[in-house]
Amino acid sequence: MALIGILGGMGPLATVDFMEQVIALTSSAGASCDQQHLELLVAHLTHIPDRSEALLGNGESPLPGLLRGIDMLNRNEVELIVIPCNSAHHWYDAMRTHSKAPIIHIAEASVAALPPGVSRVAVLATGGTYHCGLYQRMLLARGLEPVEPDSATQQHIDACIREVKAGRLDASALHLALALDWLLAQGAQAVVLGCTELPLAAREMTVPSIPIVDSTLELARATVSYGLERGWNCPR
Amino acid sequence: MALIGILGGMGPLATVDFMEQVIALTSSAGASCDQQHLELLVAHLTHIPDRSEALLGNGESPLPGLLRGIDMLNRNEVELIVIPCNSAHHWYDAMRTHSKAPIIHIAEASVAALPPGVSRVAVLATGGTYHCGLYQRMLLARGLEPVEPDSATQQHIDACIREVKAGRLDASALHLALALDWLLAQGAQAVVLGCTELPLAAREMTVPSIPIVDSTLELARATVSYGLERGWNCPR
Repeated sequence: MALIGILGGMGPLATVDFMEQVIALTSSAGASCDQQHLELLVAHLTHIPDRSEALLGNGESPLPGLLRGIDMLNRNEVELIVIPCNSAHHWYDAMRTHSKAPIIHIAEASVAALPPGVSRVAVLATGGTYHCGLYQRMLLARGLEPVEPDSATQQHIDACIREVKAGRLDASALHLALALDWLLAQGAQAVVLGCTELPLAAREMTVPSIPIVDSTLELARATVSYGLERGWNCPR
Repeated sequence: MALIGILGGMGPLATVDFMEQVIALTSSAGASCDQQHLELLVAHLTHIPDRSEALLGNGESPLPGLLRGIDMLNRNEVELIVIPCNSAHHWYDAMRTHSKAPIIHIAEASVAALPPGVSRVAVLATGGTYHCGLYQRMLLARGLEPVEPDSATQQHIDACIREVKAGRLDASALHLALALDWLLAQGAQAVVLGCTELPLAAREMTVPSIPIVDSTLELARATVSYGLERGWNCPR
């Protein structure tokens, strides 16, 4: 059996949302019984220290915990690893070097999903992801202009993420709406939900009618394509 | 870190539903950030042969696959195992003997959740679970009378489960409604959704106002109680 490793639990609901997207995409591709779905091994390691806090210099590094998760998945002979947490991808190179199995990069998958014709793109992410410039560098490398949140808007984004992690989706959507309003007023033509908690908040509200890239969904699409191309949905 | 092992993928959406219930119950108990949630290792082994078909004598035994999953979880030093698939519990004794980690029994947790004062109980389950008498024996042992489905009703229950496994929740709810109508007309005073696909169908419809035990939720309650009592929500 070819196992896909998920380094998850960052946060818990985002991992469940990611799994649900993987299952729905596999069903859409024709799976009609359990045995036609992809096999997964999910290391749901919620105790890994907060990625954003570490990137902002306020907390313990998550890298040892991330590498322990990568080791656990490799010990179980997974053939691919995916990590439904954008902030964790600040440590992508260290994890990739450490891992026998390849790791799909969530931000690369998300930026690649931006439609042609847009030039000003707002990325909503944790304060830590924003601070370390993960998405800004990728946008600039493609000739796209990042629309950056001001401090009050970033506080709404962080509050939205915190509310999702606490299971309060209604409250999370109020913060997301305020952040989106401000970013659109700055001329953003497309939005990347560059934190896997944000799509859960977006589902609780009416989102603006501009292109919105859901990083959880894009990672799920890349994962399912990778698995189905290799026939991993069929029992060996 | 104390890991809870989930032997899942049977079926895929049921496992995701189970994880979501575990997370929601942990949030309700006060978790407000990732690090206050329980750590899980989910072996999402969708390729294990169909449990119900095997119990009906129509297919390969799932036992070798179930034991491989139990081995995988134990190799990773999980301290508890739960299996969000009722039919798989026909092989509970073999798995329990094989496993270092204890395994919570989903049907025991579900039957224990029946409210006092009911005597006629309908259990909706796969044809295989029904055929092997897993729930009937437990009800009789508690002095409860099982209300058994006729063949047409069992066909609706099996069709409901198949539709959930294929990701067609609307269609699944139509079958569940017909099955519930018939069982209530036979005098059922309470219902056990004794297959982890059924609660997903029930959420798509207006359910009758009698006590309904959701086996996925009861397994999640037992799992979260076990973990929180031992402090597994706190990073070591």
